[in-house]
Amino acid sequence: MDKVLLILSHGSKAESITEITYKMRDSISAKNLYSDVKVAFMEFNSPSIPEAIADICKEGAAEIIALPMFLYKGNHILHDIPKELKKAREENPYVTIYMADPIGFDERIADILIERAEGALCQI
Amino acid sequence: MDKVLLILSHGSKAESITEITYKMRDSISAKNLYSDVKVAFMEFNSPSIPEAIADICKEGAAEIIALPMFLYKGNHILHDIPKELKKAREENPYVTIYMADPIGFDERIADILIERAEGALCQI
Repeated sequence: MDKVLLILSHGSKAESITEITYKMRDSISAKNLYSDVKVAFMEFNSPSIPEAIADICKEGAAEIIALPMFLYKGNHILHDIPKELKKAREENPYVTIYMADPIGFDERIADILIERAEGALCQI
Repeated sequence: MDKVLLILSHGSKAESITEITYKMRDSISAKNLYSDVKVAFMEFNSPSIPEAIADICKEGAAEIIALPMFLYKGNHILHDIPKELKKAREENPYVTIYMADPIGFDERIADILIERAEGALCQI
């Protein structure tokens, strides 16, 4: 195992969150771009970020790309997640960890949002 | 003014959040599908959801589609936002409010995530 992609998800007490995160993992994994694609949750769900990184390191990865499945650079991206990654880096000194940007603005998101606005609506 | 799209953003203490939300508003607005496209923030930034709805109602909208710019159905989507929308609905009885689904799983998000993982990386 060489370069592992680690999808970072916010986590939630609501069940649907893990389903979407694992669907995203399966979809990216099917493209065979990385030696493995794993997920970690910032809070509420497991594995946590340190747990996932420890597991990946046990399997002998040389490089981890931590990829935030977050829309924008809020405090989780600017502070909380880098802190967790740094801690994991110290505990696993033989692995190189990179962090990617979050989703950010993208026209494709605008397209999806319009589809949602035209889709099933719930009257309040 | 008739059917107004109201993009609901989480909000953050980090500045970049409002920039992305307004870019999304501009991009959707440019498609001329709605009589107006507005934004509201669940927390930290203004306008809040009740403030934005009060403003839209003052301008005479008959219908508002509240569109969550959120990735998944966490507790904000299941509980917090519907509660805010119901309160706004009671305060503005002449408007019809619909709530759309959040982004959810979509192959286009997987494509964007892969681009981010192949893009600028920060070594931890």
